[in-house]
Amino acid sequence: MCGIVGYIGENQAGPILLDGLSKLEYRGYDSAGIAVYDGSEIKMTKSTGRLKVLEELTHGGETMPGTSGIGHTRWATHGAPTDTNAHPHFNKDRSIVVVHNGIIENYIKLKKKLQSKGYEFISDTDTEVVAHLLDYYYKGDPLETVTKIMNRVEGSYALGIMFLDHPDELYAVRKDSPLIVGHAEGGNLIASDVPAVLKYTRRVYFIENEEVVVLKKDSMTFYNIDAEEIEKEPVTIEWDISAAEKGGYEHFMQKEMYEQPKAVTDTLNPRLKGSRIEIEELGMTDEEIRAVRKIFIVACGSAYHTGVTAKYVFEGLARIPVEVDLASEFRYRDPILEEGTLVIIVSQSGETADSLAALREAKARGCRVLGIVNVVGSSIAREADNVMYTWAGPEIAVATTKAYSTQLIAEYLLALKFAHVRGRINDEELAGYIRDLQLLPQQIEMLLNNKEKIQKFANRYIAAKDVFFIGRGIDYAISLEGSLKLKEISYIHSEAYAAGELKHGTISLIEEGTLVAAVLTQEDLYKKMISNMVEVKTRGAFILAVTNADNVEVEKSADYVIYIPKNNKYFTNSLAVIPLQLFGYYVAIGKGCDVDKPRNLAKSVTVE
Amino acid sequence: MCGIVGYIGENQAGPILLDGLSKLEYRGYDSAGIAVYDGSEIKMTKSTGRLKVLEELTHGGETMPGTSGIGHTRWATHGAPTDTNAHPHFNKDRSIVVVHNGIIENYIKLKKKLQSKGYEFISDTDTEVVAHLLDYYYKGDPLETVTKIMNRVEGSYALGIMFLDHPDELYAVRKDSPLIVGHAEGGNLIASDVPAVLKYTRRVYFIENEEVVVLKKDSMTFYNIDAEEIEKEPVTIEWDISAAEKGGYEHFMQKEMYEQPKAVTDTLNPRLKGSRIEIEELGMTDEEIRAVRKIFIVACGSAYHTGVTAKYVFEGLARIPVEVDLASEFRYRDPILEEGTLVIIVSQSGETADSLAALREAKARGCRVLGIVNVVGSSIAREADNVMYTWAGPEIAVATTKAYSTQLIAEYLLALKFAHVRGRINDEELAGYIRDLQLLPQQIEMLLNNKEKIQKFANRYIAAKDVFFIGRGIDYAISLEGSLKLKEISYIHSEAYAAGELKHGTISLIEEGTLVAAVLTQEDLYKKMISNMVEVKTRGAFILAVTNADNVEVEKSADYVIYIPKNNKYFTNSLAVIPLQLFGYYVAIGKGCDVDKPRNLAKSVTVE
Repeated sequence: MCGIVGYIGENQAGPILLDGLSKLEYRGYDSAGIAVYDGSEIKMTKSTGRLKVLEELTHGGETMPGTSGIGHTRWATHGAPTDTNAHPHFNKDRSIVVVHNGIIENYIKLKKKLQSKGYEFISDTDTEVVAHLLDYYYKGDPLETVTKIMNRVEGSYALGIMFLDHPDELYAVRKDSPLIVGHAEGGNLIASDVPAVLKYTRRVYFIENEEVVVLKKDSMTFYNIDAEEIEKEPVTIEWDISAAEKGGYEHFMQKEMYEQPKAVTDTLNPRLKGSRIEIEELGMTDEEIRAVRKIFIVACGSAYHTGVTAKYVFEGLARIPVEVDLASEFRYRDPILEEGTLVIIVSQSGETADSLAALREAKARGCRVLGIVNVVGSSIAREADNVMYTWAGPEIAVATTKAYSTQLIAEYLLALKFAHVRGRINDEELAGYIRDLQLLPQQIEMLLNNKEKIQKFANRYIAAKDVFFIGRGIDYAISLEGSLKLKEISYIHSEAYAAGELKHGTISLIEEGTLVAAVLTQEDLYKKMISNMVEVKTRGAFILAVTNADNVEVEKSADYVIYIPKNNKYFTNSLAVIPLQLFGYYVAIGKGCDVDKPRNLAKSVTVE
Repeated sequence: MCGIVGYIGENQAGPILLDGLSKLEYRGYDSAGIAVYDGSEIKMTKSTGRLKVLEELTHGGETMPGTSGIGHTRWATHGAPTDTNAHPHFNKDRSIVVVHNGIIENYIKLKKKLQSKGYEFISDTDTEVVAHLLDYYYKGDPLETVTKIMNRVEGSYALGIMFLDHPDELYAVRKDSPLIVGHAEGGNLIASDVPAVLKYTRRVYFIENEEVVVLKKDSMTFYNIDAEEIEKEPVTIEWDISAAEKGGYEHFMQKEMYEQPKAVTDTLNPRLKGSRIEIEELGMTDEEIRAVRKIFIVACGSAYHTGVTAKYVFEGLARIPVEVDLASEFRYRDPILEEGTLVIIVSQSGETADSLAALREAKARGCRVLGIVNVVGSSIAREADNVMYTWAGPEIAVATTKAYSTQLIAEYLLALKFAHVRGRINDEELAGYIRDLQLLPQQIEMLLNNKEKIQKFANRYIAAKDVFFIGRGIDYAISLEGSLKLKEISYIHSEAYAAGELKHGTISLIEEGTLVAAVLTQEDLYKKMISNMVEVKTRGAFILAVTNADNVEVEKSADYVIYIPKNNKYFTNSLAVIPLQLFGYYVAIGKGCDVDKPRNLAKSVTVE
C-alpha cells in the first residue's frame, strides 16, 4: 500500500524523505513523489517507477532545498500509475499540498460538488479531492480546516499536509490507515511505518483514528477531531535496524525463508515451561478457556490459510467448533456471534485494514478478541483484548514465509493449551505434542538445506501456464498456501482444490503435461489421495507429490516426490509448506520476476 | 462416471446393450465395450472414443449374436482410456467376464497376491483384479464366489458378471455405486441408472449395498452377502421418456437453461399455501425446527455453491449458524456434530458418492439428515431421514443449470420456514418474501430472453486464458458458480475470489485486458465492490459487471454491464446466475467445445 513520510526540522528535508520512502518500499508502490518548502514556495517532483528514478531526478534530494516536506510512494487504487496521479497533490494555487494513504469512498460525490463550485481536477485520484476540499474550507486556520474535512470525507486515510502560509508546521491525521510520528534530534517525522524513522529515532507515537498531530521543528501537539488538545505517550522501539537488511541473501524472501527455524524457535520457546504450555499474554483463566463455545479465526491471505489449518487442529485436539473467515467477508456478513465466542485475528503487520475492521466489529458486538500479530504496537495489537506476538522479526518480502510459519506455531500452542485445559488431552499427551513441536525447527532446517531437488524441478516449470495444488484435510490448507506462494510471485495461474472436489468441474482443465502438486501428509487419507492423483495422471497430468518420509508407495502414482520428515499429523503444515515456498521462489527466479516486490501487490494491505 | 448395462432374455442382446449405453452417455465416458454369449463362447468388442465407434464395429450389435450380455461405458480412473483398459474384462481362459463401476481401493494388494499365484494382467485397471479374483475362488458355484469376493474387495463397486458355464444366468452386485434391475417383457436388465431401461420397462428394483441379484430370462432372485435369499419390492418410474430428449434446442444445457422458469415454479408452488410455506416432506414439527442449533450443508460442485448461498440466507433470516462443507472433506475431517445439528445433503443425482458417504457418516453419528435431491428413489433420497425433492426433471447436460436453480429455491423455502417458525420473521414479512419468490420465474425468463447482449459479449472472450469472478457476500457465492460454469465447459482457467481478498495475492495475475466479472447485487456492498473493481481496472482489467437494475452508477467503473431485475437481496443469486450461465455456454459454443459432455467430466460422480 502507499507509504507516507514527512519531515520538519533543522536538516535538509529532501534526502530524509527519500531515505524514509526507501524504507517503505516493502509496502509496494508504482510511483513516488516529494514536495519541499524552499522558503518561498512549495516545490514538487513526481515520477512513476522505482524510487531510484525520483532520486536521480532530484540528485538525491539536493535539487529540492528546504527543511520541511512530505513524500509518498503510491500503490495505484483510483487512476492508473502515472506521473500525474502520483502524490503529492496540490490545490489550484499550490498553497496546500497533500499526500494520502487509503481510499476516499465518497470521492465521486465530493468531486461533483467541488466541480460545481468551479474546481478543476487534473488527476484521476481520490486524493486530489482532499487538496481541493481543504482549499474550499480554508479560512486561514489549518487545524480548523483539517478537522472539518475529517467530517466530510468517508473511507480510510492517513494524510500529510502542508500549508504555504504556515510554513513552520506540518499536519498529519489518520482514520483506518496507519500513521506514526517520530521525535528526533533536530526535527520531527511522520511515516506510515516504523522503519522509515528508525535511522533518526526510536521514540515514536502511534496516531489513533481521528487524531490530528501538528509538527513543528521542535515540538508536536496532538488533537482530537474536535480540535481539543490531547496527551499521548511515546513508545520505544526495540527492533534491530540491521534485521531489515538482506545479510548476504539474494532476496528478502530467501533470507526470510532461511530464518524460519529461528523464527519458529523464538515463537515457540518462550511459551514452553518444561512439558507445559504457558501463554501469559493470553490473559484468560482456565475458567474462561473452558467457557469458550466457538472460535472465529479471521484473517486475509496467507494468515487466513493458517486459520484454515488451525480449524483442523483446534477441532481435532480441543473439540471446539471453529469458523474461519476472510476478514473482508466477516465484517459485512453479519456473522452470528453467540455468547462464549472467541475471535482470533491473525495479521503479520497488525495493520491489515480488513482485519482491523473485523476486530472492531467483533469487539463492538461484545466478543473477546485475541490478536496474533508480528508487529509490536501495531493497530491490531493495540486494539485487541489480548495479543500473542509471533516473534518472526521484520518481514520485508511481500510473499510471507516466516510470519506464516510463526502464525502456525502460535495457533498450535493455543489449540494444545485449550485442549489440555479442557481435559481433551492429558499431561502425557501434551508432553508428546510438545516434543513434536520442538522437532520442527531442525526439520524445517533440513528441508531448507535440501533445496536442490526442488530447485531443479522448479526450473522445468517456469513456462507453466496453469498449476493445480490438491490435498485433503490439512493438506488442502497447505495446498492453498502453496498455490498462493506460486501465484503471487511468479504470475502463474495456480489454484488449490480439495482433492475430492476436482472431479466436480476443475478436472476439465487438466491436459497433457499440466502440473498437479499433490500434498499427502495425512496417513489415513493416503489411499483416497492416490485415487485422486491417478484420476489426473490418467488425463495426462504430471504429478509432484509432497509426502511423509515413510510413504514410498506414492512413487507408483507420482512423477516426482519430495519427502518431509515425520512429525505429528497436526503439525505437518509447518514442514510441507517449505518445499512449496521454495518451489514458488525458484519458479519466480527462473522467470526473472521481482520476487520481493511482485507487481500489483503490497506488503501490508491498509486499504480494503 | 462409468455406466453398466446387462441383458438376459429372448431377444438379441447386442442392440439392447448399445441402446442402454447410449442412454447412459450423460454420465461421461471415454471408451466402451460389450460382451455377448453366442451359445458356445463369450465374444467381446471394445473401443475408445464415442459409442458410435462401437456401434459401427458391431454393426449396431448384429455381428455379436446372442441373447445375454453385458456392456459398459468407461470413465477412466485407473489406467489411461485405451482399448485394453476398456471394459468388459476377462479372466485368463475367458470363462468369466466382468464390467465394473467404482474404484477398488485395495487393488494393488490384491494384484500382488494374484501375481504371486501366477495370474497375468493385461490392463492397468483395478477392474481386471476382479476378473482374476473370481477365477481364483471359482469352484463351480457363481453365487458363492461372488459373495466371497465381496468380502475381499475394498472400495466401491457395481459389477455385472457372466460365467461361461452358467450361460442362462447374469450376476450383479453393488456397494456404494448405483445399480438397478429392470423387469421387462421377455427379459431382464441391469443398469447403472433408470434411463437405460425405460424403453423396456417402468418396473425397476433398486439394489442396495452388498446385495446380489441373479437374473435369468424369466426370473430374478435377490440375495444378501451371506447368499441368503431376500425379498425386494419393485418401484414404478413415472418419468416421461421424452423429457430426456432435446426438443429443438441445440444442446441439453441450452434446453435446461430455458426450462429454469418452469423448474423453479414446479419446485416453489407445491410448497406455497397462500402466504404460508408448507413443506410436508420435511417431517419436522415446529418444536423440532425450534430445537435446531446448527445446520451443516454438505454437497459437491454446484450443489455446494448453493449451500454457500444458503448460509447467508439461513443466517440472515433465521439466525441459525450454518457450516457449509465439501462432502469429500466432511466425511474424513471428524466434524463436531453437537446435539441439535441438522445435516442437509444437496445432490442432483442423489448418487454422488462423496455426498452419500457424508450422509451415512452424519446418520451414524446421530444427526438428523435432510436430503435435497432431484432424482426420485435415488440412494440419497432413500437413505436420508427426510427428502425434499427439487422438481427440475431429468438433467442431462453435465454442467448443471436447472437443478442448481431449484436447489436454491428449496433452500430459500427452508430458510423462510425456519425463520418464521422461530419467530425471526412475522406473517407479514413472510408474505413479502413469498411475493418476491413468486416473481423469480418471470424474472428468470426475462433474463433468458435477453440473451443477445451476453452472447455478443461472450464472442469476444473465446480466446481468454484466465478469467476472474469477484463478489462479496452472496455475490461471492454467485461468483463461485459463474466461474465453475465457464471453467467446466470452456476449459478456460477461471477462478472466483471474494473481492476483498483479491489484493492478498491474486491481483498479481491481472494484466492488460484480463477479464474480471464483478457481481454486485448487495446494495450495502456496492461502494466496497466499486473500490475493488477500480483496483483491477487500474491494472488493466476489462470489467463485466452483473448488477441490479437500479445501480447505474456502476457504469462509471465497469466496461460492460448486465442488469438483473430487482428482487429481495436474499434471492438475487437466482437472477445473477442466469447471465453467467449464458456467458459460459456461449464462450464454450464459440470455442467449439462439446458443451453437454465436457472432457474429463461426468454427470453423476459415483466414485470418490
